[in-house]
Amino acid sequence: MQNTLRSDLEIAEEMADAARAAILPFFRQSNLKTDNKLDAGFDPVTAADREAEKAMRAVLAIHRPKDGVLGEEFGHSEGVSGRVWVLDPIDGTRGFISGTPTWGVLIALSDETGPKLGVIDQPYIGERFIGEKELAFVKGPMGRAELETRNTRSLDQAIIFTTFPEVGTEAEAAAFKAVSQKTKLTRYGMDCYAYALLAAGQTDLVVEAGLNAYDIQAPIAVIEAAGGIVTDWQGNPAHNGGRALAAANAEIHAAALEILKQY
Amino acid sequence: MQNTLRSDLEIAEEMADAARAAILPFFRQSNLKTDNKLDAGFDPVTAADREAEKAMRAVLAIHRPKDGVLGEEFGHSEGVSGRVWVLDPIDGTRGFISGTPTWGVLIALSDETGPKLGVIDQPYIGERFIGEKELAFVKGPMGRAELETRNTRSLDQAIIFTTFPEVGTEAEAAAFKAVSQKTKLTRYGMDCYAYALLAAGQTDLVVEAGLNAYDIQAPIAVIEAAGGIVTDWQGNPAHNGGRALAAANAEIHAAALEILKQY
Repeated sequence: MQNTLRSDLEIAEEMADAARAAILPFFRQSNLKTDNKLDAGFDPVTAADREAEKAMRAVLAIHRPKDGVLGEEFGHSEGVSGRVWVLDPIDGTRGFISGTPTWGVLIALSDETGPKLGVIDQPYIGERFIGEKELAFVKGPMGRAELETRNTRSLDQAIIFTTFPEVGTEAEAAAFKAVSQKTKLTRYGMDCYAYALLAAGQTDLVVEAGLNAYDIQAPIAVIEAAGGIVTDWQGNPAHNGGRALAAANAEIHAAALEILKQY
Repeated sequence: MQNTLRSDLEIAEEMADAARAAILPFFRQSNLKTDNKLDAGFDPVTAADREAEKAMRAVLAIHRPKDGVLGEEFGHSEGVSGRVWVLDPIDGTRGFISGTPTWGVLIALSDETGPKLGVIDQPYIGERFIGEKELAFVKGPMGRAELETRNTRSLDQAIIFTTFPEVGTEAEAAAFKAVSQKTKLTRYGMDCYAYALLAAGQTDLVVEAGLNAYDIQAPIAVIEAAGGIVTDWQGNPAHNGGRALAAANAEIHAAALEILKQY
């Protein structure tokens, strides 16, 4: 049984606060030490990453000891509740080490059907995007606002975001390009912030590949609560990672999916 | 003769404050109206752009009436002082219309030899990068800090930013790629914010093409004050626009220039 005195959303916000406090002292510091987690390629992981996940796990150990935890840095801790907190302490480490405020702390709470609550937090800007069922809002420099995806109906009016050409295989990049060529505007380099902007009604599509579960579960919860749709490139659930198509609404999702399905 | 009661830097900050106030009510609003300034391609210009330039020109009309003004939206107003304020009210309109906090207000004060004072302001984050001669600092969410470029000595340790593949010719994109392939990490989509990060010691190179004078003069002043170098792809002054190579130090500049010169 969970401690029901405080809501899951309150716990998630406490975790995000703890992660902010752990990470910001490391952001934009000189001589930031990075390790290469993968021999091939460039996937830096910082002390900030580890400190932030520890801080979030400490909040869960106190307030939600029965829940499982799946984190990027410290793996999977089994729970007994059927619920799992899925954590990426710094999504967008390439952005982090180059100083861009496009990385984020990702927190999701999931059951076997997928994420039910999500937080995308950008500590430097002081901006937090939250989605839980019908509730979707952002708190940031301009105060609090509801999140609602927009109603763009055709690809030729759409703005699309991706991390290509930085990630993904050549075939996946070709699939992305087939969609992006039909859109009005393609933007790059936004890390998880692209999903937050889609939830906020600023953009229409995010297409990515090579994702882990902890990269995509929080964005799914935030975007779905704001009225959008996230699937893989076949239209199936995306919460286990891999390839993702996030869209502002059903029509624009269908239009992009029709192209991606061919790859 | 100028009004010497207030420094140029104070005037520049008053202009940046006025631009912030003019722009922010338009940022991330739904149904933002954009015009296509160019028939081919996508170069939106918004009411925010025009209001911000008007607000900055109003400050100059009061405090620096003898100086010339060159602005993106309202062209060139001749002065009698030999000094020109070079303004881009929203650099990065593609970023602006997609909600990313990577656009900026650019303000430079130049004479015939180039920019002497520069401001890169990001209103949403509340972050302002300033350079004037030996003075270089940022004011933002984490307070005030000196700006100092870093001492990366070789391309294989460098982080490079660009707006390619979004802008530039195919030949220019190939030149960029020849440099970026030798670097540790390539990042995209940061608009003028990439130059601010270089000044802040977070990145090593920015390579762009197709620039106007008002796109590059403020970055030049900020980066030079922080210890960096900005030239065109032949090593000549870049303050009239065109192709730009910004580098954290002389060694990394020379290494990139050697490649770009061939294009």
